[in-house]
Amino acid sequence: MSGVSGLSGAVDAVDPVRAARAYLLRVAEPPAPALAAMVARCGPVQAAARVRDGEVPAAVLAETQARRCVDRAAADLHAAAALGARLVVPEDDEWPAWPFIAFGPAAARGVDWAVEPLALWVRGPARLDELSTRAVAVVGARAATSYGDHVASELGYELADRGVTVVSGAAYGIDGAAHRGALAAAGPTLAVLGCGVDYGYPSGHVGLLGRIAENGALVSEYPPGTPPARHRFLIRNRLIAALSDGTVVVEAGARSGAHNTAAAARQLGRVVMAVPGPVTSGMSRGCNALIRAGEAVLVDGVQQVLESIGRLGEDLGSPATTPQRPTDGLDPVELRVHEALRARAARTADWLARDAGVPLELVRSVLPKLEHLGLAQRCESGWRLARLSRHGAGAR
Amino acid sequence: MSGVSGLSGAVDAVDPVRAARAYLLRVAEPPAPALAAMVARCGPVQAAARVRDGEVPAAVLAETQARRCVDRAAADLHAAAALGARLVVPEDDEWPAWPFIAFGPAAARGVDWAVEPLALWVRGPARLDELSTRAVAVVGARAATSYGDHVASELGYELADRGVTVVSGAAYGIDGAAHRGALAAAGPTLAVLGCGVDYGYPSGHVGLLGRIAENGALVSEYPPGTPPARHRFLIRNRLIAALSDGTVVVEAGARSGAHNTAAAARQLGRVVMAVPGPVTSGMSRGCNALIRAGEAVLVDGVQQVLESIGRLGEDLGSPATTPQRPTDGLDPVELRVHEALRARAARTADWLARDAGVPLELVRSVLPKLEHLGLAQRCESGWRLARLSRHGAGAR
Repeated sequence: MSGVSGLSGAVDAVDPVRAARAYLLRVAEPPAPALAAMVARCGPVQAAARVRDGEVPAAVLAETQARRCVDRAAADLHAAAALGARLVVPEDDEWPAWPFIAFGPAAARGVDWAVEPLALWVRGPARLDELSTRAVAVVGARAATSYGDHVASELGYELADRGVTVVSGAAYGIDGAAHRGALAAAGPTLAVLGCGVDYGYPSGHVGLLGRIAENGALVSEYPPGTPPARHRFLIRNRLIAALSDGTVVVEAGARSGAHNTAAAARQLGRVVMAVPGPVTSGMSRGCNALIRAGEAVLVDGVQQVLESIGRLGEDLGSPATTPQRPTDGLDPVELRVHEALRARAARTADWLARDAGVPLELVRSVLPKLEHLGLAQRCESGWRLARLSRHGAGAR
Repeated sequence: MSGVSGLSGAVDAVDPVRAARAYLLRVAEPPAPALAAMVARCGPVQAAARVRDGEVPAAVLAETQARRCVDRAAADLHAAAALGARLVVPEDDEWPAWPFIAFGPAAARGVDWAVEPLALWVRGPARLDELSTRAVAVVGARAATSYGDHVASELGYELADRGVTVVSGAAYGIDGAAHRGALAAAGPTLAVLGCGVDYGYPSGHVGLLGRIAENGALVSEYPPGTPPARHRFLIRNRLIAALSDGTVVVEAGARSGAHNTAAAARQLGRVVMAVPGPVTSGMSRGCNALIRAGEAVLVDGVQQVLESIGRLGEDLGSPATTPQRPTDGLDPVELRVHEALRARAARTADWLARDAGVPLELVRSVLPKLEHLGLAQRCESGWRLARLSRHGAGAR
């Protein structure tokens, strides 16, 4: 409930914008491009009023007709508050506006699912903008092998240990292993669901979902109580892709849903990566095929994941000209030192020099700059990664 | 001994060309670019005589000085005949002239090892030209895992079963598995050795070497009795690469010699392929790295190997399917030299160099290739354009 105002006390005190968006989220099954366009045009409050009255263009009516009379906004917000969840709306500071910018160009190219969500139900203490500042999606087969499980949890751990948010879908197999790895590193992790944040699906992951909600965030477009459905997972995948800088497919059969997330990531201009595996394993067939087709970059671990994402950032040249991230503007050496820092364990300059492969003197001159930028924190036994929350929204 | 004349009966009956090349192979450690150029210029017999007398340019002397007094040609040919081996020379019908054309362009780009062998010691019933018509190299780590062994022998079997020659180096691990797979399919296989064809190295593969010699061919630049040496394996690798349409690396550690073969294949314009493997396996690190770097195409089995090779063949305009001009496939330098040739008047290399504006050394290395292609004709007073009618329009 942190960072959210207006959800305490009586539901009637809820601000009209939040209520309008809660209503619209239940009325229209995402993605609803015509409705989203109308909301962008005339604002959520007026849009909600017109939808309620049925006084909308045909395309919007088609998206809202079936459920426009179901106004459960107050009840949904109430239910959410009761389980410690909140509705994050684009008008909030924590709205992940920057990652969602990618929907625009994709929509312009005719990608029909490339629609920004009208709002997001969130359960967990972390802020969405901070979680998505430096994030990698780790996805893959439900029927993972022990190899896939191992690689996904390692990757989850190593990413989270470096302060990178591990985004996934909380499914059995690769998803769960990635979340668990992140939790083991006490690092940030975010699960985007194809059902309500209270639904407890899959049932075997109720405990895992609870731990994610305690340490990171469960996120969904679907109002509390919404059951999972196959098409919802596919629609959900666009958010996994959008909320991360790149997507790593760890294991995937020939027809795994992970291909869908990978395709979404590609269409949103994100880096698509895949972990290779034995050609004798059906669960690696999808990954190997993505790599062979040039649709995914081969990665063998966290270092190559970070390299792959970094390289794209440079190629596009966007961060340098429009600073959005705290690490923008760092030169390659500074970046390497920064990447060697850990969130929890303090490291000596010596250790950092070895890990980053940067001369000690250079490390010593870089660290104060990183500290000044709020990226590194000096402590008794050395240096560690500074918490991003220290920067607040102003850092972006 | 099939297809070989002149090796029966007394060694004295051996033709002078074969004796000269046998002598030169023992005198100079391959690759000996200056010697090769001299042999191309003045023929093997005259070149051998001049080397014997030490009346050669400094570069050739440097390559031949140490062993020029060791004339064991007759003994080597005798020893080879005794064990059922033969010396195949460029003047023989079975010389793999077509695959070796690739050395020309590579040498023109400054690749110093890109030197065609002066001759090849061969033990086995198969003809070199036939073995190399449709061939794939399968190489990799000595310390292969059971995964690598399995994939290599499967690949060897499937390729051989389709009539594709499996080329490798007869080493422990991947090489051996590939050969064994080919033998199991009763298909063609060719081992290129870094020692004499009689040396029996590695010792644990004496049985395997024998079976290859019975069914395919053992091939080496090194005279009978030559022990293996590390540098010989590296030099040998260029022949593995050249004698096949593409090279598949099945397993390779970060510093495996397979990287060397892959690099040679790339520089010779061959398709380089790699089999991915678990990122948790050190023996797959090299393969995964080649794929990640874009230096190898990922292949998961025989079908993708054939596709990868076929695709390149199509791109280049496969000679077999689309008859084109004999000069197709020449690089710009080769084209310029070819254009400087005249049909009736013989021209010296000097004259051609001036007319084509190509350095003399380069002209000298290009002319033998043009000769192999049937595009140039050597004559007493120099070189002239070969009559195309010799090959007929269907030759290419």
